[in-house]
Amino acid sequence: MRNLPIITLLLQTKSRNQMLEITDHVQRLVAQHQIQSGLAIVCVPHTTAAITINENADPDVKHDLLKKLDQLIPKSETYYQHDEGNSDSHLKTALIGNSATVIIERGQLVLGRWQGIYFCEFDGPRGIGKGRFGKAEKRGGKSNGD
Amino acid sequence: MRNLPIITLLLQTKSRNQMLEITDHVQRLVAQHQIQSGLAIVCVPHTTAAITINENADPDVKHDLLKKLDQLIPKSETYYQHDEGNSDSHLKTALIGNSATVIIERGQLVLGRWQGIYFCEFDGPRGIGKGRFGKAEKRGGKSNGD
Amino acid sequence: MRNLPIITLLLQTKSRNQMLEITDHVQRLVAQHQIQSGLAIVCVPHTTAAITINENADPDVKHDLLKKLDQLIPKSETYYQHDEGNSDSHLKTALIGNSATVIIERGQLVLGRWQGIYFCEFDGPRGIGKGRFGKAEKRGGKSNGD
Repeated sequence: MRNLPIITLLLQTKSRNQMLEITDHVQRLVAQHQIQSGLAIVCVPHTTAAITINENADPDVKHDLLKKLDQLIPKSETYYQHDEGNSDSHLKTALIGNSATVIIERGQLVLGRWQGIYFCEFDGPRGIGKGRFGKAEKRGGKSNGD
Repeated sequence: MRNLPIITLLLQTKSRNQMLEITDHVQRLVAQHQIQSGLAIVCVPHTTAAITINENADPDVKHDLLKKLDQLIPKSETYYQHDEGNSDSHLKTALIGNSATVIIERGQLVLGRWQGIYFCEFDGPRGIGKGRFGKAEKRGGKSNGD
Repeated sequence: MRNLPIITLLLQTKSRNQMLEITDHVQRLVAQHQIQSGLAIVCVPHTTAAITINENADPDVKHDLLKKLDQLIPKSETYYQHDEGNSDSHLKTALIGNSATVIIERGQLVLGRWQGIYFCEFDGPRGIGKGRFGKAEKRGGKSNGD
């Protein structure tokens, strides 16, 4: 069995809440590593950023998703105790989830026509060499590459 | 290693919001393909339908889940920009998630006694040959079948 | 290929809503079974308890997460039909998700510095030999351990 390649992708975000599409990045890595068949586990090592698979066509969908999430889970609540002021970011992350599992078949990510993989920033902006955690990174490991 | 069988299941929904249990379908496919051990990745290629694992006994649970979700995320908000009128469906999908990973052991899905796998329709009805996307389908790939 | 070890972990909770960190339990199991590389599928066989990966440092994050979730999804709604009085627990479970997939590399769970794996109780307290379902258990299976 081939070992699991684990690849870290460095990303930069510009807003507190932002959805950044990474489908092409992940597909390129699958091709570079010549994975014909297996699973891509796309995950975030942060606790205030998530991964989702959603509409890749109309950017208004991202706007609506982030705005409605913000209305449901605003930055401040009188009862929040965590003093970093990002309890909302932690909850959004828990709800969206910190990883996605995508099937790889014949060298291609198995996604629907309108599906894209998104890195969801909920406590940005952060980027390479700055920001709360120094850098925003994504790990993409593939299990049982053929 | 055995390759990953990817199987597409065609489903038909009757309402805008609907939970459709597919546990038996998935279990039957595991048996047909004689998978003794591995993972079932149950996923949806749509951006307005999701997969969840939840109570399989009392149908009132489905009613309550869908109703409460609708109350939290109604179809319309004054600030929605996406002009297809289904931003709520996209957000519900992002929150519930578009896939579930289920362990297979001795030819059986490893689920709790009260757990069922559900296809969650959030922008129906749609069915085979009609509906916004033509058809509602589910892909079930199994990694490392023994 | 090595088979998938499936290990059940018995947990005890003390409140209706509680986040219980299980990272060390899972890491210990990975070491005991000498898994060098693969995936840990951490999942719950219940329909009112979930798994999430979130902040492992400040306990106030857990407080804020559970409190805000409770505000969004209170125990009672006039329209709930399920007569066990735990429709909120089912919805929280569907939103957080009943499993997490964690990459294992060189014998270690691949997690960010601040990430911990949590069992989320949403209908406790329950424990070994008592509670609604008799016991709260977690199954941790690893696919393709090298």
